[in-house]
Amino acid sequence: MTPQSEDFSAWYNELVAKAGLVDRGPVKGTMVIRPYGYRMWELLQAELDGRIKETGHENAYFPMLIPESYLKREAEHVEGFAPELAVVTHAGGKELDEPLVVRPTSETVIGEMMSKWISSHRDLPLLLNQWANVVRWELRPRTFLRTTEFLWQEGHTAHAGEDDAMRETMLALDLYDDVATNLAALPVVPGEKTPGERFAGAARTFTIEGMMRDGRALQAGTSHYMGTNFARAFDIQYTGEEGRLEYCHTTSWGMTTRMIGAVVMTHGDDKGLVLPPRLAPHQVVIVPVGRDAAEVMPAAVELAASLRTAGVRVHVDDRTHLSPGFKFNDWEMRGVPVRLELGPRDLAAGTAVMARRLGDHPKEPVPLDRLPGMITGVLDDFQAYLLRRATEFRDANTATVDDWDSFASAVSTGWARALHCGVPACEDEIKAETKATPRCVPLNAPEETGECVRCHRPSAYGKRVIFARAY
Amino acid sequence: MTPQSEDFSAWYNELVAKAGLVDRGPVKGTMVIRPYGYRMWELLQAELDGRIKETGHENAYFPMLIPESYLKREAEHVEGFAPELAVVTHAGGKELDEPLVVRPTSETVIGEMMSKWISSHRDLPLLLNQWANVVRWELRPRTFLRTTEFLWQEGHTAHAGEDDAMRETMLALDLYDDVATNLAALPVVPGEKTPGERFAGAARTFTIEGMMRDGRALQAGTSHYMGTNFARAFDIQYTGEEGRLEYCHTTSWGMTTRMIGAVVMTHGDDKGLVLPPRLAPHQVVIVPVGRDAAEVMPAAVELAASLRTAGVRVHVDDRTHLSPGFKFNDWEMRGVPVRLELGPRDLAAGTAVMARRLGDHPKEPVPLDRLPGMITGVLDDFQAYLLRRATEFRDANTATVDDWDSFASAVSTGWARALHCGVPACEDEIKAETKATPRCVPLNAPEETGECVRCHRPSAYGKRVIFARAY
Ligand SMILES: [Zn+2]
Ligand SMILES: [Zn+2]
Repeated sequence: MTPQSEDFSAWYNELVAKAGLVDRGPVKGTMVIRPYGYRMWELLQAELDGRIKETGHENAYFPMLIPESYLKREAEHVEGFAPELAVVTHAGGKELDEPLVVRPTSETVIGEMMSKWISSHRDLPLLLNQWANVVRWELRPRTFLRTTEFLWQEGHTAHAGEDDAMRETMLALDLYDDVATNLAALPVVPGEKTPGERFAGAARTFTIEGMMRDGRALQAGTSHYMGTNFARAFDIQYTGEEGRLEYCHTTSWGMTTRMIGAVVMTHGDDKGLVLPPRLAPHQVVIVPVGRDAAEVMPAAVELAASLRTAGVRVHVDDRTHLSPGFKFNDWEMRGVPVRLELGPRDLAAGTAVMARRLGDHPKEPVPLDRLPGMITGVLDDFQAYLLRRATEFRDANTATVDDWDSFASAVSTGWARALHCGVPACEDEIKAETKATPRCVPLNAPEETGECVRCHRPSAYGKRVIFARAY
Repeated sequence: MTPQSEDFSAWYNELVAKAGLVDRGPVKGTMVIRPYGYRMWELLQAELDGRIKETGHENAYFPMLIPESYLKREAEHVEGFAPELAVVTHAGGKELDEPLVVRPTSETVIGEMMSKWISSHRDLPLLLNQWANVVRWELRPRTFLRTTEFLWQEGHTAHAGEDDAMRETMLALDLYDDVATNLAALPVVPGEKTPGERFAGAARTFTIEGMMRDGRALQAGTSHYMGTNFARAFDIQYTGEEGRLEYCHTTSWGMTTRMIGAVVMTHGDDKGLVLPPRLAPHQVVIVPVGRDAAEVMPAAVELAASLRTAGVRVHVDDRTHLSPGFKFNDWEMRGVPVRLELGPRDLAAGTAVMARRLGDHPKEPVPLDRLPGMITGVLDDFQAYLLRRATEFRDANTATVDDWDSFASAVSTGWARALHCGVPACEDEIKAETKATPRCVPLNAPEETGECVRCHRPSAYGKRVIFARAY
């Protein structure tokens, strides 16, 4: 496998295939998500879905094929998505009267339904979520990060006023921050997008941004306050308590299968994947070792059962045609947090040898009867270790800069925290020269004003902006 | 609402909309699955997914857009699906070199990947499942039963030999039988399809058939043994233990959102839905009653919490602008198995009034402190009652017939069990005259031979066949 330091992109593409996360689909830019990758998505999905339901949202399902005319009702929306649309022109053996687009996102069809379902203030807030596939034709596809088809959830909500809609927008961002930080061990930075980076049709766009191990930024989830833009385009109105007809304020927010790519690029190394235990299909792998590996299989199975009872996802590698050494490398490459080696001598001593995928702990023998009681703690420590390591990496590669040379140097390897004028032409110049774009205005940054790092005009936003090259 | 007896089809269409299960999508034949309907799907999905995983299958995800040429590789497959395809001809602002079809099912793209992933007998069996949307252009759409887009799971497996593949085919059928019978309370009949009713490209097709309350049959799940048809078309080969190259034997099996329609049509009545507790979004609804309903809200919330602790899905109807009478009708229409009425007088007496959606139990006061301990039993009894009632209905409307007049009479109101010659032309005549088709050769029917009920030629299949008009 190509080392990370030599060619990060080659390392990534080789690893996601070799580790069995994905395969190439037959159509350019599409991917097959294989069981090992799909299981990570299911684990993330279950946790995120639980949080979405706990906060009062209900799941629903809207049709994938949308009349082309719907897209055109919100001017910025169609402008943003038109170049990426896949269009169904024939169906049932005939040419269709109106072409249908495969949803790139569902604001329009959900807006149309909301206008039917909402009439009174009593119908608000309307809090919906959908798990679905979407299609956006990608010119420069990259596995998980930008694929022609991807999986996601999209929350869509309608509210009586701006305050309530903004609370919802921030609540969704908080859910994403929680999931990214505490499940994927991504120390993301929540912030607001600058106007040039907003979602097509949104009044305000918020994001969580993570730093990959090549120093680039990855947008890992977004939450949009739409104002009344879609409500006006789709006539989503309600009668208020005083009987006046008012437009709803709407939001939408999404998290996608790109999260799997983010995990690979945040934690992986030259040996392969490193998976955070909370998203690992197998948290522990048991590898029988020694000349007579078959002899220890019953004990391995028994140990697995006792760990499963302790709530751990365990896999016993019972392949007989492969050597223990091959298996060690294989599971390291596939990022399993903890490996337990069990041979006849270990068994006689009542122990197994525990090896962690990363960290300062050496391999060590552990009494079999202590394992079920300690394993959750070991996994929690490993999860915390990954988050700490990624946080340190992010902070070590983020520079607060006030002059152009430092800026250019910072964004060539990581992130720059800089003051910026907010003028689109100045953003464009920065991008042309360094490939860096404004990733977000961090929510928790201190207030600060001064001169633009590029053009020396007075700074906008009242805070420093994070600039980086992005995926 | 139109009564069932007057116009079953109108009753169904009005009910699924009024109960909040669905709404019409903007494109003909598509549906929006609203939260109340989608929750039923989620509950079924969770149970079926658990069973699929327990039996060794892994979930994966394959691209939705399939090159048109893939469909053409298996002759019967393309013939069966060509008339129903939706075709993407333009994407990314350009006309595509090769049109892409939106998957009507995924045998072809999964076959292509299996041929890459399988090389040795050690790679077998390969047991995959996918949860996805599919599109089949419907000329006569009907909500849930035949919609242009629907949701389903599709299992796809590859095996070293026919025996193993047939075991898998029957295992999947058993999962469907279990889910239909024990979750949806549908007393389905498992059986084999006659050759004319097989899946396009299958060697053998098995089905579970349910009887709706208008006497028609509904196919509620199918499991196909493909022989080596797809393996030959997609070159899915493995090297056996003796080093010979062999074709795999493959299977596929699917269950869809039409199950929700089956539940509506099997249990519903003129008052509305009747939901089996295991698939009911709300198993129990608590309705505060009396002049000062607000006064009992805290007690209602407390009761709900204690029932939730007992593992029950409970909803408190806290709408203040609607009368208790309206709410009773509303929840009856929406099919909630158990309603608990709680008023100031009940509260003073330490009881709630329990009303079941169906059955011989009268409304009765129940001590509040006994409710958490008894509610699971009440729901289990209700579940069993629905299955018993549907079984009795099915049996009362199934006739064993040996002459044409009795056959024609039986299929005008229900099912006929008849001997048939197995000749396609004879099937066609029966269909032309009565609209009835062979639904299945039941697995558990006794062996029996004789004359064809229609043409008096010797019977085929060695058993009676179920004929019915079908959805
Ligand atoms: Zn500037
Ligand atoms: Zn005949």
